[in-house]
Amino acid sequence: MEKILRINMGAGESPTFQVSPLGEFAGLGGRGLTSAVIAAEVPPTCHPLSAENKLVIAPGLLSGTMAAMSGRLSIGCKSPLTGGIKESNAGGQPAQVLARLGYAAVVLEGKPKRDDLFRIIINKDGVKIEVDNSLKGLGNYAAVERMRKEFGDHIVCISIGQAGEMRLTASSIACTDMEGRPARHAGRGGPGAVMGSKCVKMIVLDDTGMSTRQPRDPEKFRAANKIFIEGLRKHAVTGEALPAYGTNVLTNILNEAGGYPTYNFKEGRFAGASKISGETMASLEAARGGMATHGCHRGCVIRCSGIYNDKDGHFVSKQPEYETVWSHGGHCGIDDIDKIARMDFIEDDIGLDTIETGVALGLAMEAGLVKYGDADAAIDLLKEIEKGTPLGRIIGSGAAVTGRVFGLDRVPVVKGQAIPAYDPRAVKGLGVTYATSTMGADHTAGYATATNILKVGGFVDPLKPEGQVELSRNLQIATAAIDSTGMCVFVAFALMDIPETFTALIDMLNSLYGIDLTPDNVVELGQKILKIERDFNAKAGFTKEHDRLPAFFKAQAVPPHNVTFDVPDEELDKVFNF
Amino acid sequence: MEKILRINMGAGESPTFQVSPLGEFAGLGGRGLTSAVIAAEVPPTCHPLSAENKLVIAPGLLSGTMAAMSGRLSIGCKSPLTGGIKESNAGGQPAQVLARLGYAAVVLEGKPKRDDLFRIIINKDGVKIEVDNSLKGLGNYAAVERMRKEFGDHIVCISIGQAGEMRLTASSIACTDMEGRPARHAGRGGPGAVMGSKCVKMIVLDDTGMSTRQPRDPEKFRAANKIFIEGLRKHAVTGEALPAYGTNVLTNILNEAGGYPTYNFKEGRFAGASKISGETMASLEAARGGMATHGCHRGCVIRCSGIYNDKDGHFVSKQPEYETVWSHGGHCGIDDIDKIARMDFIEDDIGLDTIETGVALGLAMEAGLVKYGDADAAIDLLKEIEKGTPLGRIIGSGAAVTGRVFGLDRVPVVKGQAIPAYDPRAVKGLGVTYATSTMGADHTAGYATATNILKVGGFVDPLKPEGQVELSRNLQIATAAIDSTGMCVFVAFALMDIPETFTALIDMLNSLYGIDLTPDNVVELGQKILKIERDFNAKAGFTKEHDRLPAFFKAQAVPPHNVTFDVPDEELDKVFNF
Repeated sequence: MEKILRINMGAGESPTFQVSPLGEFAGLGGRGLTSAVIAAEVPPTCHPLSAENKLVIAPGLLSGTMAAMSGRLSIGCKSPLTGGIKESNAGGQPAQVLARLGYAAVVLEGKPKRDDLFRIIINKDGVKIEVDNSLKGLGNYAAVERMRKEFGDHIVCISIGQAGEMRLTASSIACTDMEGRPARHAGRGGPGAVMGSKCVKMIVLDDTGMSTRQPRDPEKFRAANKIFIEGLRKHAVTGEALPAYGTNVLTNILNEAGGYPTYNFKEGRFAGASKISGETMASLEAARGGMATHGCHRGCVIRCSGIYNDKDGHFVSKQPEYETVWSHGGHCGIDDIDKIARMDFIEDDIGLDTIETGVALGLAMEAGLVKYGDADAAIDLLKEIEKGTPLGRIIGSGAAVTGRVFGLDRVPVVKGQAIPAYDPRAVKGLGVTYATSTMGADHTAGYATATNILKVGGFVDPLKPEGQVELSRNLQIATAAIDSTGMCVFVAFALMDIPETFTALIDMLNSLYGIDLTPDNVVELGQKILKIERDFNAKAGFTKEHDRLPAFFKAQAVPPHNVTFDVPDEELDKVFNF
Repeated sequence: MEKILRINMGAGESPTFQVSPLGEFAGLGGRGLTSAVIAAEVPPTCHPLSAENKLVIAPGLLSGTMAAMSGRLSIGCKSPLTGGIKESNAGGQPAQVLARLGYAAVVLEGKPKRDDLFRIIINKDGVKIEVDNSLKGLGNYAAVERMRKEFGDHIVCISIGQAGEMRLTASSIACTDMEGRPARHAGRGGPGAVMGSKCVKMIVLDDTGMSTRQPRDPEKFRAANKIFIEGLRKHAVTGEALPAYGTNVLTNILNEAGGYPTYNFKEGRFAGASKISGETMASLEAARGGMATHGCHRGCVIRCSGIYNDKDGHFVSKQPEYETVWSHGGHCGIDDIDKIARMDFIEDDIGLDTIETGVALGLAMEAGLVKYGDADAAIDLLKEIEKGTPLGRIIGSGAAVTGRVFGLDRVPVVKGQAIPAYDPRAVKGLGVTYATSTMGADHTAGYATATNILKVGGFVDPLKPEGQVELSRNLQIATAAIDSTGMCVFVAFALMDIPETFTALIDMLNSLYGIDLTPDNVVELGQKILKIERDFNAKAGFTKEHDRLPAFFKAQAVPPHNVTFDVPDEELDKVFNF
């Protein structure tokens, strides 16, 4: 995994490619690699949809090995949603397969002058870039199905739906899961629009004939992986809650905590929460022949994903994640889990970030376009996106544009990206992350819910401003490092509570590469990545004034705790004091 | 004119008002006053449509006197289009009338909780704030007509159309002209959306019983005014070109200079220019019983406005300004002056900035939504705005949103505001103004066309980067000062070439107020205003990275001169070195 594949979509008559050593980027993977390439090669003030932007697709440092949980794929670019740097990562199969094929990164560069749509095929024999205009206008499911018919069911796909083709700024990039479904998405920040601007609809990966990456010290690696897995199985969150109920276990927890944003962040509890909770979902899945415990990629041992069927036992969607259930649920006042699952499928198919889209749907309700709680009307709005109508394009452009076009003044975004499923006033550590993350509002960038609500890694009172900056800072640093390994961020629960699990992770890296990382080096890596990203954003025009929540979170208290966001601005400005 | 009227639209049961002395703002007028109030009282990071924003309406220091040309009205707010501070000024009657009524400023504050629409009536007896929901959904023309029926033809109106009610970010605020038509607009930056967010549809002004403001030294004032008028009559631009052909005299001039942006800034000359030029327009106006030489407010001696009739002699619109003719003309590839005039009327009626809207229409053409040159399709798009359809709301949100929603990467905006009718690559002094103005792209903020193209105040080669920063800096400073006097910015042509005219302007201020301003003081005033505005913008999150043109102006050369914008970034950063 020491080579980088660069595809120049803007080259003369037709695209060209070049495979070269990692060079100056050697030793980097995942988010560390995507952010380094973007920072080094993309002008921070370029238009995100112009030829100057690049799309960097990178497995993590441990991807393609036997390491459990190492299947996250990082996708980086200058974000058309935020205007800043972006790394969005997804589960599914591509990270493992791309790593086994030996690529540390695939970089899409330039922009074709012609109006063709391309597919890229990467296998042991090399790389092919082909025009395939028959893919135009297809949803992810149909596009992937066509590829599987042509190349076989063993292939793995990275693709965009109609939203990406339209270059809508809420568009995602889909990765196929273990069942070959395009259900795992690099959702946040509109990376699908960048892929669409490069006119690449589909990347087909086939690792037939390739083998698992071999560690320098196989024995030490195996032993460390074993300890690592034991830690994950032992921890209550990764060993019990997540496998049993998926991420949607959080609906009841956040609702109970009064931090479940309801009706566009007007309330902190939703009356319909129990109808859409993870517990309800898991029992429906069991009763209907779906699956409540399931992994999204080979090597997953947490298995928080699932398969959601309708009452007749037919596939509806992969089990929707907590944030998806929330953005269409409490945020929109919808308490019908079947319809939420249906929307999850439609958005996966069109290729949309379910957080950004759900929040935009809620804003359409706030604007009076459709009624709060009207799931059928929300589904109709999604069909507008699929068709590319003006209304669909508004919603598909995300929350900030939807709020702007409909003249709203309560628009929950930071750096143009929608705030997800945890009210920053009632989970203040996450509020600090939303405000200051280089990514715009992003719960995964420094998941303070862990310590604020789940009491993992200690406890910091979620309702008080004290201690939140330090909590968010440490989590943001750790997350940037974890996002470089290819590890699912959920391993952090065990890392935070079980010292041996953390040591085992470092041991895996060391035995894989024959290096000698220390825990301090991991912190340094995380800090370095954040600094690279923050420097890019500064050059793109971001200041401390962008490290703020929308003013209404300071002015309007949220029930039931009647709290505002009261972490002082000067404290927010200390997050990156390292 | 020493009092300030503050209207709290968000007060308890119904709005309240308070009249108080100018206090800390004494000695300020026009843009100097609006920017000082906004900077002192509006949180720079507030949402522009929230209760925290204010709308400040201020005549200039000389408004309401016998001074020629003193009828510009400044309207300030935090702009919903740019997110920065905004002063947009308009001609028409309100500045003179408001000044005669004794108000240095009217400030709309807060935001009603109810869904009512209000009108405000200000006359010699005081102030009335009344609910008038019968005005809902009316265009400016119908709304004003209704007021004139109720209060008489002598009233003067400040109003918003449907766009402002919808809080669209391209919406303007209309001021009635000498014929009582709502044809003069504070267009740029979306001030109509702020007025709409305060739920104020209409301000009716009646100066019956009030008299012209009397100078401290009437004799000196009269003498200065005479010299001032002589200067304006003597100068080729203000004494000949503007009265004969209006601002649209520039179409042929800019086209000849290769700086007439055509087909969304792809070319610098438009084949249809002569069909929509000021010369063509003036001869049509003469032939059809319109008027080619006409003043937009009492006391205007340049008389660059006009009245445009159709071939049957019926009123179509006021004579469209050069920038309006351009944004619908060359930018959209439309060469039908009748249809351009029709669009001017529709946009005045709906209450839209004709620059922002025209540029957005061109982007809809770039996106393939309608064809370049199709005027009827463009008119249909305007009807969508009037109806408030999703497509209409997109266009009515301006160029940046339209470009975003339709996935374009050539979007000519600075700080979110559309670049007007002078290609920054071929009129580089204006390029510097676009990039660095506190207002976003705004030709009036430092009108370098004067020296680049018209050779007023000397000559700086428009195609070379040298000297443009100094030119733009000096013009921006002078303009900020002129915008505070209530003087039409066109007086600057004479001020730049005729020293006595400049002295006469200062003499008018001195004899009016009994003060002792020097030319240096005028420069200091301009600098002070720019610093206040720039400081607000910095606190709102603007950096030097926002003082840049879109990247494509650097990368793509414009014919016929095949020039790019090559004023170095480091030079742009020196504009505010004072």
